[in-house]
Amino acid sequence: MKYKAFHRLSYGLYLIATELEGKKYGYIGNTAFQVTSSPSQIAISSHKKNNSTDKIINSKKFSLSVLKKEVNTTLIGEFGFMSSTDIDKFRNIETKTSKTGAPIVTDSCVAWFDCKVVTTVDVGSHMLIIGEVVDSDVLSGEEPLTYAYYREKYKMLSPKNSPTYVERDRLDKEEEPKAEIQEEREKQPEKDSGSDNMSTFTCTICGFRYDPEEGDPTMGIPPGTPFEDLPDDYKCPICNASKDYFRED
Amino acid sequence: MKYKAFHRLSYGLYLIATELEGKKYGYIGNTAFQVTSSPSQIAISSHKKNNSTDKIINSKKFSLSVLKKEVNTTLIGEFGFMSSTDIDKFRNIETKTSKTGAPIVTDSCVAWFDCKVVTTVDVGSHMLIIGEVVDSDVLSGEEPLTYAYYREKYKMLSPKNSPTYVERDRLDKEEEPKAEIQEEREKQPEKDSGSDNMSTFTCTICGFRYDPEEGDPTMGIPPGTPFEDLPDDYKCPICNASKDYFRED
Repeated sequence: MKYKAFHRLSYGLYLIATELEGKKYGYIGNTAFQVTSSPSQIAISSHKKNNSTDKIINSKKFSLSVLKKEVNTTLIGEFGFMSSTDIDKFRNIETKTSKTGAPIVTDSCVAWFDCKVVTTVDVGSHMLIIGEVVDSDVLSGEEPLTYAYYREKYKMLSPKNSPTYVERDRLDKEEEPKAEIQEEREKQPEKDSGSDNMSTFTCTICGFRYDPEEGDPTMGIPPGTPFEDLPDDYKCPICNASKDYFRED
Repeated sequence: MKYKAFHRLSYGLYLIATELEGKKYGYIGNTAFQVTSSPSQIAISSHKKNNSTDKIINSKKFSLSVLKKEVNTTLIGEFGFMSSTDIDKFRNIETKTSKTGAPIVTDSCVAWFDCKVVTTVDVGSHMLIIGEVVDSDVLSGEEPLTYAYYREKYKMLSPKNSPTYVERDRLDKEEEPKAEIQEEREKQPEKDSGSDNMSTFTCTICGFRYDPEEGDPTMGIPPGTPFEDLPDDYKCPICNASKDYFRED
Protein backbone atom coordinates (compact mmCIF):
# COMPACT_ATOMS: atom_id res chain seq x y z
CA MET A 1 0.00 0.00 0.00
CA LYS A 2 1.45 3.38 -1.03
CA TYR A 3 -0.18 6.27 0.80
CA LYS A 4 1.19 8.78 -1.70
CA ALA A 5 -1.28 7.32 -4.24
CA PHE A 6 -4.00 9.18 -2.32
CA HIS A 7 -2.34 12.47 -3.25
CA ARG A 8 -3.12 11.70 -6.92
CA LEU A 9 -6.88 12.00 -6.31
CA SER A 10 -8.09 15.47 -7.34
CA TYR A 11 -10.24 17.68 -5.13
CA GLY A 12 -11.39 21.25 -4.77
CA LEU A 13 -11.56 23.08 -1.45
CA TYR A 14 -14.87 24.18 -0.02
CA LEU A 15 -16.25 26.12 2.91
CA ILE A 16 -19.17 24.19 4.37
CA ALA A 17 -21.50 26.04 6.75
CA THR A 18 -24.74 25.66 8.65
CA GLU A 19 -26.80 27.36 11.36
CA LEU A 20 -28.46 25.82 14.40
CA GLU A 21 -30.40 27.67 17.09
CA GLY A 22 -29.15 31.06 15.88
CA LYS A 23 -25.45 30.11 15.84
CA LYS A 24 -23.34 29.66 12.69
CA TYR A 25 -20.86 26.78 12.21
CA GLY A 26 -18.44 26.12 9.38
CA TYR A 27 -15.30 24.29 8.28
CA ILE A 28 -13.09 23.74 5.23
CA GLY A 29 -13.43 20.42 3.44
CA ASN A 30 -12.00 18.89 0.28
CA THR A 31 -14.38 15.98 0.00
CA ALA A 32 -17.49 17.18 -1.79
CA PHE A 33 -18.88 15.76 -5.00
CA GLN A 34 -22.05 15.59 -7.04
CA VAL A 35 -23.64 12.15 -6.72
CA THR A 36 -26.70 12.53 -8.96
CA SER A 37 -27.82 15.13 -11.50
CA SER A 38 -31.59 14.64 -11.36
CA PRO A 39 -32.27 15.71 -8.69
CA SER A 40 -28.92 17.41 -8.09
CA GLN A 41 -27.38 15.93 -4.96
CA ILE A 42 -23.98 16.63 -3.40
CA ALA A 43 -22.21 14.34 -0.89
CA ILE A 44 -19.73 15.56 1.71
CA SER A 45 -17.63 13.52 4.17
CA SER A 46 -17.33 15.07 7.62
CA HIS A 47 -15.43 13.78 10.69
CA LYS A 48 -17.65 12.87 13.65
CA LYS A 49 -15.35 14.94 15.90
CA ASN A 50 -15.87 18.09 13.77
CA ASN A 51 -18.09 20.45 15.71
CA SER A 52 -20.04 21.21 12.52
CA THR A 53 -20.95 17.59 11.70
CA ASP A 54 -23.66 17.18 14.37
CA LYS A 55 -24.94 20.68 13.66
CA ILE A 56 -25.42 19.88 9.94
CA ILE A 57 -27.20 16.62 10.74
CA ASN A 58 -29.47 18.28 13.32
CA SER A 59 -30.21 21.40 11.27
CA LYS A 60 -30.72 19.24 8.13
CA LYS A 61 -29.10 21.89 5.94
CA PHE A 62 -25.70 23.09 4.76
CA SER A 63 -24.18 25.51 2.29
CA LEU A 64 -21.11 24.67 0.21
CA SER A 65 -19.03 27.59 -1.06
CA VAL A 66 -16.33 26.92 -3.68
CA LEU A 67 -13.11 28.71 -2.64
CA LYS A 68 -11.19 30.71 -5.24
CA LYS A 69 -7.60 29.93 -6.21
CA GLU A 70 -6.04 32.97 -4.54
CA VAL A 71 -7.95 32.46 -1.31
CA ASN A 72 -7.60 34.56 1.84
CA THR A 73 -5.38 32.22 3.90
CA THR A 74 -6.75 33.48 7.23
CA LEU A 75 -10.07 31.99 6.16
CA ILE A 76 -8.34 28.62 5.57
CA GLY A 77 -6.52 28.86 8.91
CA GLU A 78 -9.59 29.68 10.96
CA PHE A 79 -12.23 27.56 9.21
CA GLY A 80 -9.85 24.71 8.41
CA PHE A 81 -7.81 24.33 11.55
CA MET A 82 -9.73 25.90 14.45
CA SER A 83 -12.94 25.00 16.25
CA SER A 84 -16.14 27.05 16.55
CA THR A 85 -15.94 26.37 20.29
CA ASP A 86 -12.74 28.51 20.46
CA ILE A 87 -13.49 31.43 18.15
CA ASP A 88 -16.37 33.02 16.28
CA LYS A 89 -15.24 32.09 12.78
CA PHE A 90 -17.90 34.32 11.18
CA ARG A 91 -16.97 37.57 12.96
CA ASN A 92 -15.31 39.13 9.89
CA ILE A 93 -17.01 37.11 7.17
CA GLU A 94 -19.61 38.18 4.63
CA THR A 95 -22.55 35.78 4.41
CA LYS A 96 -25.97 35.77 2.83
CA THR A 97 -28.98 33.78 3.97
CA SER A 98 -30.10 30.94 1.76
CA LYS A 99 -33.45 29.29 1.04
CA THR A 100 -32.72 26.56 3.61
CA GLY A 101 -31.51 29.12 6.16
CA ALA A 102 -27.85 28.00 6.04
CA PRO A 103 -25.40 30.95 5.96
CA ILE A 104 -23.67 31.20 2.57
CA VAL A 105 -20.07 32.43 2.73
CA THR A 106 -19.31 34.63 -0.30
CA ASP A 107 -15.81 35.95 0.67
CA SER A 108 -13.04 34.34 -1.42
CA CYS A 109 -15.61 32.14 -3.22
CA VAL A 110 -16.51 31.60 -6.88
CA ALA A 111 -19.80 29.69 -6.51
CA TRP A 112 -22.13 28.31 -3.85
CA PHE A 113 -24.74 25.61 -3.28
CA ASP A 114 -27.58 25.55 -0.76
CA CYS A 115 -28.45 22.00 0.29
CA LYS A 116 -31.03 20.20 2.43
CA VAL A 117 -29.80 16.97 4.01
CA VAL A 118 -31.58 13.91 2.60
CA THR A 119 -29.41 10.98 3.77
CA THR A 120 -26.55 10.35 6.18
CA VAL A 121 -24.32 7.26 6.11
CA ASP A 122 -22.03 6.22 8.97
CA VAL A 123 -18.71 5.27 7.33
CA GLY A 124 -16.64 4.88 10.52
CA SER A 125 -14.68 7.94 11.62
CA HIS A 126 -16.75 10.12 9.27
CA MET A 127 -20.36 10.73 8.32
CA LEU A 128 -21.19 10.83 4.65
CA ILE A 129 -23.87 13.50 4.33
CA ILE A 130 -25.93 13.69 1.14
CA GLY A 131 -27.73 16.94 0.40
CA GLU A 132 -30.20 17.87 -2.32
CA VAL A 133 -29.23 21.18 -3.94
CA VAL A 134 -32.18 23.59 -3.66
CA ASP A 135 -30.32 26.65 -4.95
CA SER A 136 -26.92 27.56 -6.42
CA ASP A 137 -25.13 30.49 -7.99
CA VAL A 138 -21.89 31.49 -9.67
CA LEU A 139 -20.20 34.53 -8.08
CA SER A 140 -17.13 34.97 -10.25
CA GLY A 141 -15.36 33.62 -13.31
CA GLU A 142 -12.10 33.21 -11.33
CA GLU A 143 -10.48 29.78 -11.08
CA PRO A 144 -11.50 27.60 -8.15
CA LEU A 145 -8.87 26.52 -5.61
CA THR A 146 -7.74 22.92 -6.06
CA TYR A 147 -6.35 20.79 -3.27
CA ALA A 148 -3.25 20.04 -5.38
CA TYR A 149 -2.49 23.78 -5.74
CA TYR A 150 -3.08 24.40 -2.04
CA ARG A 151 -0.81 21.53 -0.97
CA GLU A 152 1.94 22.62 -3.38
CA LYS A 153 1.75 26.34 -2.49
CA TYR A 154 1.45 26.02 1.28
CA LYS A 155 3.31 22.70 1.78
CA MET A 156 0.55 21.64 4.11
CA LEU A 157 -0.93 18.39 5.31
CA SER A 158 -4.62 17.75 5.79
CA PRO A 159 -5.95 18.52 9.27
CA LYS A 160 -6.21 15.42 11.51
CA ASN A 161 -9.98 15.18 11.05
CA SER A 162 -9.83 15.25 7.26
CA PRO A 163 -10.72 12.08 5.32
CA THR A 164 -7.44 12.54 3.45
CA TYR A 165 -5.21 12.84 6.54
CA VAL A 166 -1.98 10.82 6.42
CA GLU A 167 0.85 11.17 8.96
CA ARG A 168 3.82 12.98 7.47
CA ASP A 169 6.24 10.26 8.67
CA ARG A 170 4.32 7.65 6.72
CA LEU A 171 4.59 9.72 3.52
CA ASP A 172 8.24 10.63 4.06
CA LYS A 173 9.21 6.94 4.25
CA GLU A 174 7.70 6.15 0.85
CA GLU A 175 9.87 6.24 -2.25
CA GLU A 176 8.80 8.69 -4.95
CA PRO A 177 8.32 7.31 -8.46
CA LYS A 178 10.98 8.33 -10.93
CA ALA A 179 9.94 11.44 -12.83
CA GLU A 180 11.62 14.58 -14.11
CA ILE A 181 10.64 16.65 -11.15
CA GLN A 182 12.14 14.10 -8.79
CA GLU A 183 15.37 13.94 -10.72
CA GLU A 184 15.67 17.70 -10.50
CA ARG A 185 15.37 17.46 -6.74
CA GLU A 186 17.98 14.72 -6.58
CA LYS A 187 20.52 17.00 -8.28
CA GLN A 188 20.23 19.58 -5.53
CA PRO A 189 23.05 19.62 -2.94
CA GLU A 190 22.25 17.60 0.16
CA LYS A 191 21.48 19.30 3.43
CA ASP A 192 24.33 19.52 5.95
CA SER A 193 22.88 17.17 8.54
CA GLY A 194 25.21 18.55 11.23
CA SER A 195 23.71 22.02 10.96
CA ASP A 196 21.00 21.88 13.61
CA ASN A 197 19.81 25.45 13.30
CA MET A 198 18.56 24.66 9.78
CA SER A 199 15.91 22.28 11.14
CA THR A 200 12.35 22.57 9.85
CA PHE A 201 9.55 23.40 12.29
CA THR A 202 5.87 22.51 12.00
CA CYS A 203 2.93 24.56 13.26
CA THR A 204 0.98 22.32 15.65
CA ILE A 205 -2.25 24.21 14.91
CA CYS A 206 -2.44 23.89 11.15
CA GLY A 207 0.48 21.71 10.02
CA PHE A 208 2.33 24.45 8.07
CA ARG A 209 6.03 23.55 7.87
CA TYR A 210 8.64 26.32 8.13
CA ASP A 211 11.74 25.44 6.12
CA PRO A 212 14.70 27.76 6.86
CA GLU A 213 16.20 27.03 3.43
CA GLU A 214 13.14 28.62 1.82
CA GLY A 215 12.31 31.21 4.48
CA ASP A 216 8.80 32.63 4.29
CA PRO A 217 8.63 35.19 1.49
CA THR A 218 4.92 35.82 2.20
CA MET A 219 5.96 37.21 5.60
CA GLY A 220 9.11 38.95 4.35
CA ILE A 221 11.51 36.28 5.70
CA PRO A 222 14.42 35.63 3.30
CA PRO A 223 15.67 32.11 2.44
CA GLY A 224 18.40 30.88 4.82
CA THR A 225 16.75 32.21 8.01
CA PRO A 226 16.87 29.63 10.86
CA PHE A 227 13.62 29.30 12.84
CA GLU A 228 15.43 30.62 15.93
CA ASP A 229 16.25 33.87 14.11
CA LEU A 230 12.64 34.64 13.17
CA PRO A 231 11.32 37.81 14.85
CA ASP A 232 9.46 37.17 18.14
CA ASP A 233 6.22 38.41 16.59
CA TYR A 234 6.48 36.00 13.64
CA LYS A 235 3.09 34.40 12.96
CA CYS A 236 2.19 31.25 11.05
CA PRO A 237 1.24 32.50 7.56
CA ILE A 238 -1.72 30.12 7.47
CA CYS A 239 -3.43 30.17 10.85
CA ASN A 240 -1.78 33.14 12.55
CA ALA A 241 -0.41 31.04 15.44
CA SER A 242 2.65 32.48 17.25
CA LYS A 243 6.14 30.88 17.30
CA ASP A 244 5.28 29.04 20.54
CA TYR A 245 2.97 26.76 18.60
CA PHE A 246 5.78 25.45 16.36
CA ARG A 247 7.64 22.20 17.11
CA GLU A 248 10.98 21.08 15.64
CA ASP A 249 10.57 18.21 13.12
CA MET B 1 -30.50 27.70 -9.41
CA LYS B 2 -27.47 28.15 -11.69
CA TYR B 3 -26.30 24.86 -13.20
CA LYS B 4 -22.94 26.37 -14.16
CA ALA B 5 -22.10 26.43 -10.44
CA PHE B 6 -21.63 22.66 -10.69
CA HIS B 7 -18.74 23.24 -13.10
CA ARG B 8 -16.85 24.94 -10.26
CA LEU B 9 -16.59 21.67 -8.31
CA SER B 10 -13.17 20.07 -8.90
CA TYR B 11 -12.69 16.44 -9.87
CA GLY B 12 -10.10 14.09 -11.28
CA LEU B 13 -10.88 11.47 -13.91
CA TYR B 14 -10.61 7.80 -13.11
CA LEU B 15 -10.89 4.43 -14.81
CA ILE B 16 -12.95 2.14 -12.61
CA ALA B 17 -12.83 -1.60 -13.34
CA THR B 18 -13.98 -4.94 -12.01
CA GLU B 19 -14.22 -8.59 -13.00
CA LEU B 20 -17.15 -10.96 -12.65
CA GLU B 21 -17.28 -14.58 -13.81
CA GLY B 22 -14.12 -14.20 -15.89
CA LYS B 23 -15.24 -11.05 -17.74
CA LYS B 24 -13.79 -7.58 -17.24
CA TYR B 25 -15.90 -4.41 -17.01
CA GLY B 26 -14.85 -0.79 -16.76
CA TYR B 27 -15.86 2.84 -17.22
CA ILE B 28 -14.55 6.38 -16.76
CA GLY B 29 -15.84 8.32 -13.75
CA ASN B 30 -15.10 11.69 -12.21
CA THR B 31 -16.83 11.12 -8.90
CA ALA B 32 -14.39 9.34 -6.61
CA PHE B 33 -13.21 10.60 -3.25
CA GLN B 34 -11.63 9.41 -0.04
CA VAL B 35 -14.24 9.29 2.74
CA THR B 36 -12.13 8.10 5.68
CA SER B 37 -8.40 7.72 6.30
CA SER B 38 -8.41 5.00 8.95
CA PRO B 39 -9.26 2.62 7.41
CA SER B 40 -8.77 4.18 3.97
CA GLN B 41 -12.09 4.14 2.16
CA ILE B 42 -13.00 5.57 -1.23
CA ALA B 43 -16.55 6.34 -2.44
CA ILE B 44 -17.63 6.32 -6.08
CA SER B 45 -21.00 7.26 -7.60
CA SER B 46 -22.11 5.02 -10.45
CA HIS B 47 -25.31 5.21 -12.56
CA LYS B 48 -27.65 2.25 -12.16
CA LYS B 49 -27.84 1.97 -15.97
CA ASN B 50 -24.03 1.63 -16.27
CA ASN B 51 -23.26 -1.96 -17.14
CA SER B 52 -20.39 -1.94 -14.63
CA THR B 53 -22.45 -0.86 -11.60
CA ASP B 54 -24.17 -4.21 -11.01
CA LYS B 55 -20.94 -6.04 -11.73
CA ILE B 56 -19.07 -4.07 -9.05
CA ILE B 57 -21.83 -4.65 -6.51
CA ASN B 58 -21.99 -8.38 -7.29
CA SER B 59 -18.22 -8.94 -7.46
CA LYS B 60 -17.75 -6.81 -4.29
CA LYS B 61 -14.53 -5.34 -5.69
CA PHE B 62 -13.25 -2.56 -7.94
CA SER B 63 -10.02 -0.94 -8.98
CA LEU B 64 -9.65 2.81 -9.43
CA SER B 65 -6.87 4.02 -11.74
CA VAL B 66 -5.99 7.72 -11.76
CA LEU B 67 -5.70 8.91 -15.39
CA LYS B 68 -2.73 11.07 -16.39
CA LYS B 69 -3.10 14.59 -17.79
CA GLU B 70 -2.07 13.72 -21.35
CA VAL B 71 -4.33 10.67 -21.50
CA ASN B 72 -4.84 8.45 -24.54
CA THR B 73 -8.19 9.82 -25.75
CA THR B 74 -9.26 6.50 -27.31
CA LEU B 75 -9.31 5.14 -23.76
CA ILE B 76 -11.65 8.00 -22.72
CA GLY B 77 -13.87 7.44 -25.77
CA GLU B 78 -14.22 3.68 -25.30
CA PHE B 79 -14.38 3.45 -21.50
CA GLY B 80 -16.26 6.72 -21.05
CA PHE B 81 -18.84 6.64 -23.83
CA MET B 82 -19.31 3.04 -24.94
CA SER B 83 -20.79 -0.05 -23.30
CA SER B 84 -19.07 -3.35 -22.49
CA THR B 85 -22.04 -5.01 -24.18
CA ASP B 86 -20.92 -3.51 -27.54
CA ILE B 87 -17.13 -3.83 -27.46
CA ASP B 88 -14.39 -5.55 -25.49
CA LYS B 89 -12.93 -2.43 -23.90
CA PHE B 90 -9.93 -4.34 -22.56
CA ARG B 91 -8.74 -5.82 -25.89
CA ASN B 92 -5.76 -3.44 -26.23
CA ILE B 93 -5.32 -2.48 -22.59
CA GLU B 94 -2.56 -3.42 -20.18
CA THR B 95 -3.89 -4.63 -16.81
CA LYS B 96 -2.45 -6.32 -13.75
CA THR B 97 -4.33 -8.48 -11.29
CA SER B 98 -4.89 -7.06 -7.84
CA LYS B 99 -5.28 -8.58 -4.37
CA THR B 100 -9.08 -8.46 -4.68
CA GLY B 101 -8.97 -9.88 -8.21
CA ALA B 102 -10.15 -6.68 -9.91
CA PRO B 103 -8.16 -5.87 -13.10
CA ILE B 104 -5.98 -2.80 -12.61
CA VAL B 105 -5.58 -0.63 -15.72
CA THR B 106 -2.06 0.83 -15.85
CA ASP B 107 -2.09 2.43 -19.36
CA SER B 108 -2.26 6.26 -19.19
CA CYS B 109 -2.44 6.13 -15.36
CA VAL B 110 -0.36 7.68 -12.57
CA ALA B 111 -1.66 5.69 -9.57
CA TRP B 112 -4.15 2.97 -8.67
CA PHE B 113 -6.25 1.69 -5.77
CA ASP B 114 -7.58 -1.82 -5.21
CA CYS B 115 -10.85 -1.77 -3.23
CA LYS B 116 -13.27 -4.23 -1.67
CA VAL B 117 -16.88 -3.02 -1.50
CA VAL B 118 -18.06 -2.47 2.08
CA THR B 119 -21.27 -0.42 1.68
CA THR B 120 -23.64 0.62 -1.08
CA VAL B 121 -26.18 3.44 -0.80
CA ASP B 122 -29.09 3.95 -3.20
CA VAL B 123 -29.14 7.69 -3.98
CA GLY B 124 -31.75 7.62 -6.77
CA SER B 125 -30.39 7.38 -10.32
CA HIS B 126 -26.96 6.35 -8.96
CA MET B 127 -25.47 3.93 -6.45
CA LEU B 128 -22.92 5.32 -4.04
CA ILE B 129 -20.38 2.52 -3.61
CA ILE B 130 -17.91 2.66 -0.72
CA GLY B 131 -14.78 0.54 -0.95
CA GLU B 132 -12.02 -0.15 1.56
CA VAL B 133 -8.61 0.29 -0.07
CA VAL B 134 -6.64 -2.95 0.39
CA ASP B 135 -3.72 -1.96 -1.85
CA SER B 136 -2.49 1.07 -3.80
CA ASP B 137 0.53 2.21 -5.78
CA VAL B 138 1.99 5.23 -7.55
CA LEU B 139 3.04 4.51 -11.17
CA SER B 140 4.43 7.85 -12.29
CA GLY B 141 5.19 11.37 -11.11
CA GLU B 142 3.21 12.86 -14.02
CA GLU B 143 0.29 15.18 -13.31
CA PRO B 144 -3.15 13.60 -12.97
CA LEU B 145 -5.91 14.54 -15.40
CA THR B 146 -8.46 16.92 -13.91
CA TYR B 147 -12.02 17.19 -15.09
CA ALA B 148 -11.57 20.97 -15.59
CA TYR B 149 -8.63 20.38 -17.97
CA TYR B 150 -10.48 17.65 -19.84
CA ARG B 151 -13.59 19.82 -20.29
CA GLU B 152 -11.54 22.82 -21.43
CA LYS B 153 -9.32 20.87 -23.81
CA TYR B 154 -11.95 18.65 -25.43
CA LYS B 155 -15.00 20.98 -25.10
CA MET B 156 -16.96 17.99 -23.93
CA LEU B 157 -20.04 17.39 -21.82
CA SER B 158 -20.40 14.60 -19.28
CA PRO B 159 -21.94 11.40 -20.66
CA LYS B 160 -25.68 11.11 -19.94
CA ASN B 161 -25.14 8.61 -17.11
CA SER B 162 -22.64 10.78 -15.26
CA PRO B 163 -23.66 12.35 -11.92
CA THR B 164 -22.47 15.66 -13.34
CA TYR B 165 -24.52 15.52 -16.57
CA VAL B 166 -26.34 18.75 -17.49
CA GLU B 167 -28.04 19.36 -20.86
CA ARG B 168 -26.03 21.75 -23.01
CA ASP B 169 -29.14 23.89 -23.72
CA ARG B 170 -29.63 24.47 -20.01
CA LEU B 171 -26.04 25.67 -19.65
CA ASP B 172 -26.11 27.80 -22.81
CA LYS B 173 -29.13 29.75 -21.49
CA GLU B 174 -27.33 30.78 -18.28
CA GLU B 175 -25.50 34.08 -18.15
CA GLU B 176 -21.79 33.89 -17.41
CA PRO B 177 -20.51 35.98 -14.50
CA LYS B 178 -18.46 38.98 -15.51
CA ALA B 179 -14.77 38.12 -15.56
CA GLU B 180 -11.77 38.98 -17.69
CA ILE B 181 -11.97 35.85 -19.77
CA GLN B 182 -15.62 36.56 -20.57
CA GLU B 183 -14.93 40.13 -21.54
CA GLU B 184 -12.25 38.92 -23.92
CA ARG B 185 -14.81 36.69 -25.59
CA GLU B 186 -17.32 39.52 -25.86
CA LYS B 187 -14.82 41.57 -27.84
CA GLN B 188 -14.60 38.92 -30.55
CA PRO B 189 -16.59 39.58 -33.72
CA GLU B 190 -20.00 37.97 -33.72
CA LYS B 191 -20.76 34.97 -35.88
CA ASP B 192 -22.53 35.61 -39.18
CA SER B 193 -25.80 33.91 -38.34
CA GLY B 194 -26.74 33.64 -42.02
CA SER B 195 -23.74 31.43 -42.80
CA ASP B 196 -25.21 27.95 -42.38
CA ASN B 197 -22.15 25.99 -43.39
CA MET B 198 -20.37 27.27 -40.27
CA SER B 199 -22.77 25.33 -38.01
CA THR B 200 -21.32 23.26 -35.17
CA PHE B 201 -21.89 19.49 -35.13
CA THR B 202 -21.96 17.19 -32.11
CA CYS B 203 -20.83 13.56 -31.99
CA THR B 204 -23.82 11.53 -30.79
CA ILE B 205 -21.54 8.86 -29.34
CA CYS B 206 -19.38 10.94 -27.04
CA GLY B 207 -20.68 14.52 -27.14
CA PHE B 208 -17.57 16.05 -28.76
CA ARG B 209 -18.57 19.27 -30.56
CA TYR B 210 -16.93 20.13 -33.89
CA ASP B 211 -16.69 23.91 -34.31
CA PRO B 212 -15.72 24.92 -37.90
CA GLU B 213 -14.29 28.23 -36.63
CA GLU B 214 -11.69 26.27 -34.65
CA GLY B 215 -11.29 23.25 -36.94
CA ASP B 216 -9.67 20.21 -35.36
CA PRO B 217 -5.91 20.77 -35.13
CA THR B 218 -5.44 17.35 -33.45
CA MET B 219 -6.65 15.76 -36.72
CA GLY B 220 -4.90 18.25 -39.02
CA ILE B 221 -8.08 20.21 -39.85
CA PRO B 222 -7.40 23.99 -40.09
CA PRO B 223 -9.71 26.63 -38.51
CA GLY B 224 -12.47 27.78 -40.86
CA THR B 225 -13.27 24.30 -42.25
CA PRO B 226 -17.06 23.68 -42.45
CA PHE B 227 -18.19 20.25 -41.25
CA GLU B 228 -19.35 19.43 -44.80
CA ASP B 229 -15.80 19.93 -46.10
CA LEU B 230 -14.19 17.48 -43.69
CA PRO B 231 -12.68 14.44 -45.47
CA ASP B 232 -15.02 11.43 -45.68
CA ASP B 233 -12.72 9.41 -43.45
CA TYR B 234 -12.73 12.09 -40.69
CA LYS B 235 -13.14 10.45 -37.29
CA CYS B 236 -14.22 11.93 -33.97
CA PRO B 237 -10.94 12.72 -32.16
CA ILE B 238 -12.38 11.37 -28.91
CA CYS B 239 -14.28 8.17 -29.65
CA ASN B 240 -13.26 7.46 -33.23
CA ALA B 241 -16.87 7.59 -34.53
CA SER B 242 -17.25 8.39 -38.26
CA LYS B 243 -18.93 11.54 -39.68
CA ASP B 244 -22.29 9.72 -39.88
CA TYR B 245 -22.55 9.87 -36.09
CA PHE B 246 -22.45 13.69 -36.00
CA ARG B 247 -25.63 15.79 -35.85
CA GLU B 248 -25.95 19.52 -36.60
CA ASP B 249 -26.51 21.61 -33.42
